[in-house]
Amino acid sequence: MEEVKLLGFWVSPFSLRVEMALKLKGIEYEFIEAQRPIKKCPNIIKYNPIYKKVPVFLHNGNPIPESLVILEYIDENWKDGTSLLPKDPYQRAIARFWAKFIDEKCLPEILKLCYDSNYEVKVKAIGELQELLKLLENEMMKDNNKIFFGGENKVGYMEIVSILITYWLGVMQEALGVDILNKKEFPNICGWADKVISFSFMKENLPPREKLLAIYKEYAQPLVPPNNELSHTHK
Amino acid sequence: MEEVKLLGFWVSPFSLRVEMALKLKGIEYEFIEAQRPIKKCPNIIKYNPIYKKVPVFLHNGNPIPESLVILEYIDENWKDGTSLLPKDPYQRAIARFWAKFIDEKCLPEILKLCYDSNYEVKVKAIGELQELLKLLENEMMKDNNKIFFGGENKVGYMEIVSILITYWLGVMQEALGVDILNKKEFPNICGWADKVISFSFMKENLPPREKLLAIYKEYAQPLVPPNNELSHTHK
Repeated sequence: MEEVKLLGFWVSPFSLRVEMALKLKGIEYEFIEAQRPIKKCPNIIKYNPIYKKVPVFLHNGNPIPESLVILEYIDENWKDGTSLLPKDPYQRAIARFWAKFIDEKCLPEILKLCYDSNYEVKVKAIGELQELLKLLENEMMKDNNKIFFGGENKVGYMEIVSILITYWLGVMQEALGVDILNKKEFPNICGWADKVISFSFMKENLPPREKLLAIYKEYAQPLVPPNNELSHTHK
Repeated sequence: MEEVKLLGFWVSPFSLRVEMALKLKGIEYEFIEAQRPIKKCPNIIKYNPIYKKVPVFLHNGNPIPESLVILEYIDENWKDGTSLLPKDPYQRAIARFWAKFIDEKCLPEILKLCYDSNYEVKVKAIGELQELLKLLENEMMKDNNKIFFGGENKVGYMEIVSILITYWLGVMQEALGVDILNKKEFPNICGWADKVISFSFMKENLPPREKLLAIYKEYAQPLVPPNNELSHTHK
């Protein structure tokens, strides 16, 4: 018998990426909620000592951290059934390129936006994120490569990788009262996000919006100008 | 006829990763040296508008940026002959994990060490890099997963990905007069680096050390304490 476990946290889009991949492939697994604070969870320290983060995938006791690495592993190890990545090598490369872009470029700005307590850092992160989203918007406008939906009208690698942008970001910006990703400036990303979220697979697996929003309202650092700015405004 | 081109720069270890992959696979290619400054090279702007960096791989006119994405593409598209990544899915995952670690964690610190002009930023980067290298050193000490040499005594994915650490870093630290990666503190990494560099494939393909050193001596920002520190020392 194979032992498939996921050490995760329901608030994490990276943890959900892995759950979605397992569900798309029809792989049974046990979900283990990491103890908080996650950096101090004994299982996390044991299985992901380098990053001390969720998700950690455990296959027959062998740990794999990092959601994008896990998705590749799942796709390679269970070759039968739905393929997560597109089949064509060039489409696969382009999908990997954009996944890296989301995690390496967009994510650090999103983290600053949410958790940094410095007002100026947050404002700068908003600007950076808007610039990055413009690059994605332009790519989606042409979408020569049909990376979104892999040219097919179904949920695949890009759709599950992108939940950070297509679902979480909207919740975060509502929690913080900021307007970054909107239909006027980003019609293609928003149109795609609407389409992704309307899939029954997504509806069944995304956490309820209100529940997620409540968490971000509680834990995100609010965007408040520094005191001197406030007093200046009040004069 | 297939058209295989690489838009690169001989000083870049990321560009050389791709050349090494092509050579290990026995794929003929045309190397096109990017014009400098690279961010203004018309070919770079055309084919890698998101990052404006080398390398860019061009296969039958289709561009792929990002060296790790290119290596995956080359390994998938030319399946015959030497495989770059290990064959076992778990070993592949671990190799990808450490490749990501080198590029996402070590590289930003190495860039600060080399090109940031602020003394404190550079000193902090040295400390961060030492902590990161300790994590790699510990992993190599156990090497349960046999990721290094993929359990085989030959050059593969991890060896070509790691040239940033096993070759470039030594050159950079000599150019800057700093001592980060040394045999006393990092016997496993240094031992592995010595072994990697002793392969004839590496000797034939790495740029001559003196030539690389001269470039870094010219372009790296020296590590000089701020004026007040200097004057304090001279008192």
